[in-house]
Amino acid sequence: MSLLVVGSVALDSVQTPFGSRDNVLGGSATYFSAAASLLTKVSVVGVVGEDFPLRDLEFLEKRGVSLDGLEKVAGRTFRWKGKYGFDLNAAETLDTQLNVFESFDPKLSPQARKAERIFLGNIDPVLQMRVLEQSENPRLVCADTMNYWISSKREALLKLLPRVDVLMVNDGEVRQLAGESNVIKAARAAQRMGAKAVVVKRGEYGALLIDGESSFYSPAFPIAEVIDPTGAGDSFAGGFLGLLDRLDASDGKALKQATVMGSTIASFTVEQFSLDRLRNLDLVQIRRRFDAFRALVHFEELPGHVG
Amino acid sequence: MSLLVVGSVALDSVQTPFGSRDNVLGGSATYFSAAASLLTKVSVVGVVGEDFPLRDLEFLEKRGVSLDGLEKVAGRTFRWKGKYGFDLNAAETLDTQLNVFESFDPKLSPQARKAERIFLGNIDPVLQMRVLEQSENPRLVCADTMNYWISSKREALLKLLPRVDVLMVNDGEVRQLAGESNVIKAARAAQRMGAKAVVVKRGEYGALLIDGESSFYSPAFPIAEVIDPTGAGDSFAGGFLGLLDRLDASDGKALKQATVMGSTIASFTVEQFSLDRLRNLDLVQIRRRFDAFRALVHFEELPGHVG
Repeated sequence: MSLLVVGSVALDSVQTPFGSRDNVLGGSATYFSAAASLLTKVSVVGVVGEDFPLRDLEFLEKRGVSLDGLEKVAGRTFRWKGKYGFDLNAAETLDTQLNVFESFDPKLSPQARKAERIFLGNIDPVLQMRVLEQSENPRLVCADTMNYWISSKREALLKLLPRVDVLMVNDGEVRQLAGESNVIKAARAAQRMGAKAVVVKRGEYGALLIDGESSFYSPAFPIAEVIDPTGAGDSFAGGFLGLLDRLDASDGKALKQATVMGSTIASFTVEQFSLDRLRNLDLVQIRRRFDAFRALVHFEELPGHVG
Repeated sequence: MSLLVVGSVALDSVQTPFGSRDNVLGGSATYFSAAASLLTKVSVVGVVGEDFPLRDLEFLEKRGVSLDGLEKVAGRTFRWKGKYGFDLNAAETLDTQLNVFESFDPKLSPQARKAERIFLGNIDPVLQMRVLEQSENPRLVCADTMNYWISSKREALLKLLPRVDVLMVNDGEVRQLAGESNVIKAARAAQRMGAKAVVVKRGEYGALLIDGESSFYSPAFPIAEVIDPTGAGDSFAGGFLGLLDRLDASDGKALKQATVMGSTIASFTVEQFSLDRLRNLDLVQIRRRFDAFRALVHFEELPGHVG
């Protein structure tokens, strides 16, 4: 089994009602690989600048994450600055500096080309396609995207979708993509555009999986201490694909388990700033919370006399 | 078994992106009893004006709803006018005319006083308490409230809460009540204020039950054709209490089933304007969708080698 992620490795500055952190580890590929590496072997393709403290990624290498595809180039690392109010569902972006990410052109090593499962983090769909063109027959492709690409690179995105097994977006994104306010209809429209399955990430409300005709809903785990929601979506993706790769499966049963695993790992991520909680997470804790999800949603059948 | 609801019987004018209706049947007691009467016997305490078309309630009487406690008095019926945008989660209130509801003073008949389960719809907590003072030892009390009462009648509400078994509110309301942005913490704070259990209604995202230490989440059923969300919350309450009354139970197992039943009936309500869908609903359809909820949330355990 082998899992490849292409996305940003960033330095984030984050303010939440519970504190702030400056220039801490962030980025989609970072959160993704921190989550997925708890379950399987991951390779990262990305780019950082000369200012990036590579030692901060040592904990990933210790978990077997391959950073061979992480280029270090002249210039500054991608930086994001954001702020959350008490409604932790949405960040207000204060500043985005693409820096070295602006001229990022993902190059896959001979080994990375053989990856069986690929996560295309939220980057230009033209680049996402370039990754697929370099890869040899992956068994599963999962892609994220965002409002900016949906409006400015729509054509490239529509070319990509037929090669996507799982489109992983939030409510607003799937609505925008489909031009349809109802999320269920919007997800079905995304399937008609080519995505085999759609996972709609709904933050503190959980995640909805539309796979063929079937629907599955995983709530978010009820967390009393949400400190920093940054990276929840990418660590969801990491848990999701990490489990599929570990199980070496992508049938309906596995996709449901993967959705719950995504929710499980995301629920840890938000308990601390940056990747702090993912750094100290292990499979025993993950397994315990995954099992707690069953109790959270399980209910008994009605007795026969009702209905 | 016997179930009493105290609340509004109203004439609504509603605009959604899918059409509009003027002066149609609405009100919390109306939606509640239309839902609950599919499962058990319901009595309504409320008030309407001389302009109210009582024949519109005949379908409720045919389902065994007792309207003996529905007073008809001089003046006009409570009227609400609202508008929904494509985000159907929140209505914009265009006009509220309390009319005869302004001087509403609920009076329970000797039979209504004996009701075993009571739903206190969203009215002044002073009046909610007056209902409880007239009732004889109900086995279960469930109460709704809203931002207006939480700020303007806080003291009366705090006096009521220790007599409430299930507080049924939305995200914003439980946050406001507790002065706490995290919904889980806010629900626990409401429990410390006296409510034994809390159901947080989250519209299209489902409902969260906090019962003692235990948490349970029911998603909303994925509905591709949401036409009018008006009454979803009150028909949720009707399904919830209707099932508890039918089962004659309120243990943890029954509360979970009731939460799913609330979501089930609410998911029908929103498929058409006003009470149109509830009018034509039957137990067979309800049972089928209740069972479909199991498929929506069910996932298999992980194999032993994970974790």
